[in-house]
Amino acid sequence: MTERLVVVGGDAAGMSAASQARRLLGRDDLAITAFERGEHTSYSACGIPYFVGGDVRPLERLVVRTPAEFRDLYDIDVRTRHEVVEIDTRTARVRVRDLDAGSEKWQAYSHLVVATGATPKRPQWPGIDADGVFGVQTLGDGVALDALLTEGACRSAVVVGGGYIGLEMAEALVRRGVPRVTLVERDEEPMPTLDPDMGALVRTALEDVGVAVRTSTIVDAIETDSTGRVRAVAAGQDSIAADVVVLGLGVRPASALAEAAGIEVGPTGGIRTDRRMRTSAEGVWAAGDCVEVFHRVSRGPAAVALGTHANKQGRVVGINVGGGYATFPGVVGTAISKICEHEVSRTGLTVAEAGAAGFETVAVVVESTTRAGYFPGSEPMRIKLVAERGSGRLLGAQIVGRAGSAKRIDALAVALWNGMSVGEIEGLDLSYAPPFAPVWDPVLIAALEAHGAVSAPGR
Amino acid sequence: MTERLVVVGGDAAGMSAASQARRLLGRDDLAITAFERGEHTSYSACGIPYFVGGDVRPLERLVVRTPAEFRDLYDIDVRTRHEVVEIDTRTARVRVRDLDAGSEKWQAYSHLVVATGATPKRPQWPGIDADGVFGVQTLGDGVALDALLTEGACRSAVVVGGGYIGLEMAEALVRRGVPRVTLVERDEEPMPTLDPDMGALVRTALEDVGVAVRTSTIVDAIETDSTGRVRAVAAGQDSIAADVVVLGLGVRPASALAEAAGIEVGPTGGIRTDRRMRTSAEGVWAAGDCVEVFHRVSRGPAAVALGTHANKQGRVVGINVGGGYATFPGVVGTAISKICEHEVSRTGLTVAEAGAAGFETVAVVVESTTRAGYFPGSEPMRIKLVAERGSGRLLGAQIVGRAGSAKRIDALAVALWNGMSVGEIEGLDLSYAPPFAPVWDPVLIAALEAHGAVSAPGR
Repeated sequence: MTERLVVVGGDAAGMSAASQARRLLGRDDLAITAFERGEHTSYSACGIPYFVGGDVRPLERLVVRTPAEFRDLYDIDVRTRHEVVEIDTRTARVRVRDLDAGSEKWQAYSHLVVATGATPKRPQWPGIDADGVFGVQTLGDGVALDALLTEGACRSAVVVGGGYIGLEMAEALVRRGVPRVTLVERDEEPMPTLDPDMGALVRTALEDVGVAVRTSTIVDAIETDSTGRVRAVAAGQDSIAADVVVLGLGVRPASALAEAAGIEVGPTGGIRTDRRMRTSAEGVWAAGDCVEVFHRVSRGPAAVALGTHANKQGRVVGINVGGGYATFPGVVGTAISKICEHEVSRTGLTVAEAGAAGFETVAVVVESTTRAGYFPGSEPMRIKLVAERGSGRLLGAQIVGRAGSAKRIDALAVALWNGMSVGEIEGLDLSYAPPFAPVWDPVLIAALEAHGAVSAPGR
Repeated sequence: MTERLVVVGGDAAGMSAASQARRLLGRDDLAITAFERGEHTSYSACGIPYFVGGDVRPLERLVVRTPAEFRDLYDIDVRTRHEVVEIDTRTARVRVRDLDAGSEKWQAYSHLVVATGATPKRPQWPGIDADGVFGVQTLGDGVALDALLTEGACRSAVVVGGGYIGLEMAEALVRRGVPRVTLVERDEEPMPTLDPDMGALVRTALEDVGVAVRTSTIVDAIETDSTGRVRAVAAGQDSIAADVVVLGLGVRPASALAEAAGIEVGPTGGIRTDRRMRTSAEGVWAAGDCVEVFHRVSRGPAAVALGTHANKQGRVVGINVGGGYATFPGVVGTAISKICEHEVSRTGLTVAEAGAAGFETVAVVVESTTRAGYFPGSEPMRIKLVAERGSGRLLGAQIVGRAGSAKRIDALAVALWNGMSVGEIEGLDLSYAPPFAPVWDPVLIAALEAHGAVSAPGR
């Protein structure tokens, strides 16, 4: 008998699950229907800042596959503008609303994949819904902001939130010629996923390209003019002029639909799954930004909205639905970003995160170069390692530097994944030639320093 | 009582050992003398092609530290133009020749570090000593070749040997405007440290910049004119015109001095040491290109002439001489090179090397891009993984691509170091953002493919 796979959410995780399942099972064995509330499938939300900044055009380049391609290539029935509004796990059905027709119907499933993604955080500030306030999640967000910038109507912009997306948007606005761009961040430095000493380097990078950085600043309200358009951001005594406000406050797992169906949600707000991405409900799987994952260093749950995890998890679901066996092994918290001429990356735990996870730590920061010092194009980079006191086990790493620095985080992410100590890392056989590294790669120098610090008396 | 450390060879390994020992022991505890046959200490031989190509000027930038700096900073008595011609392990002395004065004397040691480096391979071809034939090892080699190129006297050059240095020199000659540059390689493709399918990509890269590539070609002789200058390279029926011949045939460990003293030398021709870099003779240590190392994948001995190993090994010796404890953990065969606009890297074993080490292998090649496909500057790259049949354990990796590809080898080198299987590698948390990688990093795509191949029926 033909089984039916129903997918809720037509982005990376959901469509990876669907297409992977199709690779294993033909249409006689498995019918696949995917419901997507929006108009697009499988687009690169992480590409939106680069569309707005003008690097990537046209917008369609951000769409990995269209609904038509999924139909033609994978025989997947993709329904855009269809929102799943209820899951009934008892009868194994979902209630779907056709957003254009306004009608609803029930759809039965043999396997259900919940891939509802994440919801941007949107505080209940007065004026938050004013014209000129933009999120950065859907392609529509990008298009609307782009249109406004193209009109030249934006003389001042405020980006609220100094995480990856916030910083990338601040850069995009500068590149589009907005005369006054201000970044507002609640924490003491931008990029609070780094330790403050590394975040301070990011602040400098932003200021170098003309972004005004206001940290330790709490937004109270969005001020509007008589027409209902944003005109400023109010923070304490200050009113920061703004024709445009971009919200980059991060996201939370969109787990409400699953939770309402009685599916277990973890402390991070993400849907809880086992290693095969099965939820607590029979026949229901989950993948992508809506789930909670295992952090291999803290050994606790984490919610990490990142396309790379979504793709991996979706693939795992697809293999399992297709009758194979696959597991998602967890994350170590790796992330990377480009901000103007600077690159930023991190993996594992910061000093504060390690402390919260119960570790005592030793941390070092070293300054080195991306290439042999004498080689043209050699750029400065700084690297911080966080190691466990006593054992010297690597717990985390952070890199801020210029072109050619940040991707080095991968070697450290693999070392971290394998539980290596900084003393072991210093012996690693990393590639060396003058156009690529000093004879001691910055990663090795940092490990040497950290090993020395861990071995110092009293440690 | 003051002990005396004597270092034979004033380059990376020897001077690292000396300066590291000095960090641990002051002058009252340890006197340090280093003998160097040449005129320079601690220079970057791997930088010579970039000096010749014009990227790095002046030559002095390749010198990491001068003898005067070692004296002033580390209280190391450096004697250049002094050659150690005999080691007497019984009486713990070395016989030293002052090359300028022509005199000799004996010098006693408490600890001896043999860091004699490597000797370029120089076949006994007729005409090999002709004017216009250059090696690529000492700074003097670079200076002499540069002078000739500056005169504009070179219209045709032949580089013999298609390894890293040979290719880098071929590129340097092209960049200096030599109209005809030919690369001659005995094997079927250039870069024989890669599998031939990947070497073929390097051939294309060379041809793209105008280098004539002649593979499967054995040189018989260097032809000279009546003045004793090179005029051609004879290979079989062919005579390849050449005003300049550059020898890039690789090196062998310079272990003759140690061997003559009865110190054990291994099957690779390198001095055998234990993990603390002790030789078979009491009080005698060795480090750098003259030693044989443990290859962690083949589990056999290997001789790898590379500054990064030399520095690590020298440091290990220095710590041990200074009363500490340090070991050299071996290598996995990582190497990297830039050839024109292409980058090449490798780690572990090739298919052929894995076969020689007794493994049965599964290999895959995938093509991907350095950044998200839609992101400006995204460049093509190809990556090959070699895995053990059955277990799927990674045995080696090779990358050929454009800017931003090759340093990815480090993540694979760390995975290899830790004995990861391709199935484990596909789950790694590597960094992703559009300016740095596709949502599936090429490393992960290759691991997925390899995992699939290993799991296929019959594997």
